[in-house]
Amino acid sequence: MRIAIVGLGLIGGSLLRALDAAGHEVTGFDADPATRAAARDAGFLAGDSVAEAISGAELVVSAVPMTVLPQVIAQLAATDCLVTDVTSVKGPVRDLMAAHGVRRFVGGHPMAGRETSGFAAAEKDLFDGCAWVLCLEDGTSLADWLVLARLFTGLGARVVPAGADEHDAAVAKISHVPHLFAAVLAEQILTDPLAGALGAGSFRDGTRVAATRPELTAAMCGGNHEMVRRELKRLIARLGEMSESLDTLAPHLEPGARARRSWPATPGTGFTMAADRESLLALGRSGGWVMSVGDTEVVGLRPESDRNDP
Amino acid sequence: MRIAIVGLGLIGGSLLRALDAAGHEVTGFDADPATRAAARDAGFLAGDSVAEAISGAELVVSAVPMTVLPQVIAQLAATDCLVTDVTSVKGPVRDLMAAHGVRRFVGGHPMAGRETSGFAAAEKDLFDGCAWVLCLEDGTSLADWLVLARLFTGLGARVVPAGADEHDAAVAKISHVPHLFAAVLAEQILTDPLAGALGAGSFRDGTRVAATRPELTAAMCGGNHEMVRRELKRLIARLGEMSESLDTLAPHLEPGARARRSWPATPGTGFTMAADRESLLALGRSGGWVMSVGDTEVVGLRPESDRNDP
Repeated sequence: MRIAIVGLGLIGGSLLRALDAAGHEVTGFDADPATRAAARDAGFLAGDSVAEAISGAELVVSAVPMTVLPQVIAQLAATDCLVTDVTSVKGPVRDLMAAHGVRRFVGGHPMAGRETSGFAAAEKDLFDGCAWVLCLEDGTSLADWLVLARLFTGLGARVVPAGADEHDAAVAKISHVPHLFAAVLAEQILTDPLAGALGAGSFRDGTRVAATRPELTAAMCGGNHEMVRRELKRLIARLGEMSESLDTLAPHLEPGARARRSWPATPGTGFTMAADRESLLALGRSGGWVMSVGDTEVVGLRPESDRNDP
Repeated sequence: MRIAIVGLGLIGGSLLRALDAAGHEVTGFDADPATRAAARDAGFLAGDSVAEAISGAELVVSAVPMTVLPQVIAQLAATDCLVTDVTSVKGPVRDLMAAHGVRRFVGGHPMAGRETSGFAAAEKDLFDGCAWVLCLEDGTSLADWLVLARLFTGLGARVVPAGADEHDAAVAKISHVPHLFAAVLAEQILTDPLAGALGAGSFRDGTRVAATRPELTAAMCGGNHEMVRRELKRLIARLGEMSESLDTLAPHLEPGARARRSWPATPGTGFTMAADRESLLALGRSGGWVMSVGDTEVVGLRPESDRNDP
């Protein structure tokens, strides 16, 4: 497949390496001339403009940050080929692509963050075993979706079908709000150095992601502000309930203990299923994913406890 | 020194091993006959009652859980020797000891939790490098405090001087509230399996301690409910502020990022200081600790950034 990747940071660069290693014809582009030179030095084709890079491509992957997307979206709209992206918020990207008339768009989000960034940190194995959300919206072409699902499962990813809005709610819960929790826990020790000296395992782990660059976390949460506000409000209410029940807390803690002890879920046995929109979305909602794609069917997996649960 | 240890779980058992290895005469007691037998099999003296174990001791360490303390406190009140404890909340223990007429009491808390528990998991090196709070209250004998500080620094612990109430506020911030945050984050995936499938590093770390047995976390938070409620209320207010600022979040995240990047603090150079109550409490409040104890002075350490700051 002829694939163009626009934006050669950690994700775009890793995708360039991974798709090349899988035998595809890849061309990259990055707005930074030094990054283009680094890609060429590594033996890859890199265009000197978005237009040059995407010329003749069957698929364009936009791997630029959400804030840079408006700068490249006109050129994405000018092509008839399939377009996907890798940004961490999916509803706003869907709306932006539709507003600019990008025709064949399927939103994607590989859950493959790293503490490192940039093309120098890119690795061809970055996506092996990672969850890769591919959005199935009302307007999404199932054929296009399956092309991408085949491509990314081919890199070892677990392709998770989801609606853009349910993706955004899920990442607010498991990533964006946890970053805010970490921040408010960490800042406590600035005014209470005694507490900092007593911090041990629960402080270390509960605050780890607070060390992320503030502008990155701010962009992530700001880009998903509606869902973050909604989920944060719900969790604040739960914490308020706990605060009123500190003498009888065990029943309030039991669901979290049960959830955490069975996470990450053990995958069950793969099963063949019809590749229709509703079945795929139901698979994603049950915590499952697509592991490979055939001509009219896919092989799905669900967490073990649910495998007898149709 | 002749030392009796009442309660031979992870902390009491490790203390039995550590103090024995440091050349002290130790005797243990545990309410569970099998635990007493295990201690004897390991070559230690173990009394068949609290009274037998503490007879002739110069120091008694109560290493029973807070809930069991009322069962042994009459015997602690009957002795004239120095008494300390290892429970994770210090204000309520101070009040209980005073109410029962325990005369020479200095509250302590080694920050040496483990996922394992019981005498079988006890290790003589458990306290090497760990922070060990020793409470300095208005009524505390400085001479008694220094005896314990010398003993525990001799095991490699960083002895942190603190008032019982400031200890309880600090552990609410860095341990008890983080357990509640982890619980509410973890339980989200029970009703949203898609979110569970997408959970990665920030979910893994932010929820790790949610897997703790609910009754242990409940006892810990319940025993410190006043401070937990106060600190939780403050953090909920901070999260509410962030919720109202999701489009301009970076300045709100900056203090947490700064705090976490400089934690744990790099210790500065040790300095000799007078061993008076106010100087010791100031050392603890600045994030420092006592590393060794002389006849009238101690050697203290502060985090590096504060070392020129008297």
